[in-house]
Amino acid sequence: MSAGGSGAAGNPGKDPGSGEDRLIARLFEPLARHPGALGLKDDAAFLDLPPGHQLVLTKDALVAGVHFFADDPPASIARKAMRVNLSDLAAKGAVPLGVLLAIAIPPDMSADALEDFARGLGEDADRYGAPLLGGDTVRTPGPFTVSITALGSVPMGEMVRRTSAPPGAAIVVTGTIGDAALGLQLRLDPGRPGFAALDGAQRAFLAERYLHPRPRLALAASLRAHALAAMDVSDGLVGDLAKLLAASHVAGAIDAARVPLSDAARAAITAEPALLETALTGGDDYELLAVMADAHLDAFHARATAAGIGAAVIGRTYPGQGLVVRDEGGAPIAFARSSFSHF
Amino acid sequence: MSAGGSGAAGNPGKDPGSGEDRLIARLFEPLARHPGALGLKDDAAFLDLPPGHQLVLTKDALVAGVHFFADDPPASIARKAMRVNLSDLAAKGAVPLGVLLAIAIPPDMSADALEDFARGLGEDADRYGAPLLGGDTVRTPGPFTVSITALGSVPMGEMVRRTSAPPGAAIVVTGTIGDAALGLQLRLDPGRPGFAALDGAQRAFLAERYLHPRPRLALAASLRAHALAAMDVSDGLVGDLAKLLAASHVAGAIDAARVPLSDAARAAITAEPALLETALTGGDDYELLAVMADAHLDAFHARATAAGIGAAVIGRTYPGQGLVVRDEGGAPIAFARSSFSHF
Repeated sequence: MSAGGSGAAGNPGKDPGSGEDRLIARLFEPLARHPGALGLKDDAAFLDLPPGHQLVLTKDALVAGVHFFADDPPASIARKAMRVNLSDLAAKGAVPLGVLLAIAIPPDMSADALEDFARGLGEDADRYGAPLLGGDTVRTPGPFTVSITALGSVPMGEMVRRTSAPPGAAIVVTGTIGDAALGLQLRLDPGRPGFAALDGAQRAFLAERYLHPRPRLALAASLRAHALAAMDVSDGLVGDLAKLLAASHVAGAIDAARVPLSDAARAAITAEPALLETALTGGDDYELLAVMADAHLDAFHARATAAGIGAAVIGRTYPGQGLVVRDEGGAPIAFARSSFSHF
Repeated sequence: MSAGGSGAAGNPGKDPGSGEDRLIARLFEPLARHPGALGLKDDAAFLDLPPGHQLVLTKDALVAGVHFFADDPPASIARKAMRVNLSDLAAKGAVPLGVLLAIAIPPDMSADALEDFARGLGEDADRYGAPLLGGDTVRTPGPFTVSITALGSVPMGEMVRRTSAPPGAAIVVTGTIGDAALGLQLRLDPGRPGFAALDGAQRAFLAERYLHPRPRLALAASLRAHALAAMDVSDGLVGDLAKLLAASHVAGAIDAARVPLSDAARAAITAEPALLETALTGGDDYELLAVMADAHLDAFHARATAAGIGAAVIGRTYPGQGLVVRDEGGAPIAFARSSFSHF
């Protein structure tokens, strides 16, 4: 992990040894307890891979004002950046090995904010067994930007793909869907009638689900054992399922009524049915979406229940192409977001 | 590799299936020819590590206006982002396995610019054997920002460290030093007397050295065979050597006159001696800085010469701490950049 840079482009980077450099060293070096991180004092980290395993790699970037609110607590921004990446590992059946972090720090970001960010990162590194291995800190005249590369491992050849869903299998989703999208809507437009129907605890639940994804790493091994294909739900259930089906060259149908909803989401949608579309097409769920043979459903369900997460069959795959979302009468629901029509 | 995002923070990401999304797919998917990249169509990539090897990991971020000029050719920006990372691998004795890319795209970046960026990236991926494995593309209201994670491998336990320089060894540097820093100065202040002394070819050479680092991957195996400690020179020879010495708990002395200079750099410094400090303390050299036992010097020099790169002994390590840079009379040179006094 290095701080600053080379003073290129006429805008000098932080001097090596500057106060900001020392602050960053003080904040991040304590997180680098993995031996391969070399205390962030070298040009690179090293990492061993368990014998018989292969690496799983993912990298997501988040920008203030685009992927999170600039005034979100910095520790929450760190958690979100960690967890959206760890969610990808979970969906591929991988166990985390560690992360690399790059942050671009705007001029007005305080030392306290950076310290809070580092604290959130360190807590998640411990919680999910994903130690900080290295990275880079640079300055930017733009918004706070975070990029995390997450490394995980799977037994050789066992990474769960997105492209391998067969026809005639069940479509399964973990946890509850739509909470984060409703939490975002609640934050943007709290006066909507659907949210007026919620009590304080329900509103707090939705807000929390938006702010803090929960990567389903506890089910990674179960996905390897039971899923034929999987991905995480990051861009909305309907859109992501359409992507998975298209990548696998199969069709699918799901019943909106079978999509698992939290009490809070159900109450909001009951009070304002238009919010169903928000729940089904909004993003940031970070639940697992999997296709599995019927014979595996009971075992997966038992593992999910044991993990306190839950899993629900919401539909099936078929030969053909396209995704149909059915209402309770079996009629297709049309969604306003045209993008899904591409699949 | 995924494009866009979840429409968080009230600023929707690119719709899956949008024109921009398809552009990015069209530009980057052809680069993802490594089987583990899965055509950038999955949530993650997979990668096998050669038996008996361990991973070497590095991640550097570059921001327009900070690490490169916003009006640099996009292909050159891509090359710089690739090469600063590959230079870290080279300095650790590692062979590239691949890269992950995250870019944050400002609203005014054209499709042509993105295409040029992708072209530069792809050419370097081929040139250096570092295929694109995955990543993320997001939008930003700020400057164009590029983060690359480079993965390499070394035989188990053979990563060349920064912290392992003993006293009583030779300090070696590859190539020539200061060209990039002078190239940057030439761009910022072309009227300086030192640059007036140069012909057009010399000016073009310095400008090119700033724009296009040359990662010394051809010497990675030689470093493993011969170096006791190494790093790449990214933040200036004097500062980086001071870091290496401090990390290794040894002292060092180098002779400014032994630092290898290109003809262009020598001509500029002869005409304007103040540019010597720019050459020795400026950044972006991306040469290798190594400490090695005298018995290994001939063999390393022969390998460097065979690679067309060159290598020069510029000083020695000693017990103690600190770095002295001596002039031709043997007197210490004081540098204006106070940061180095921290070591």
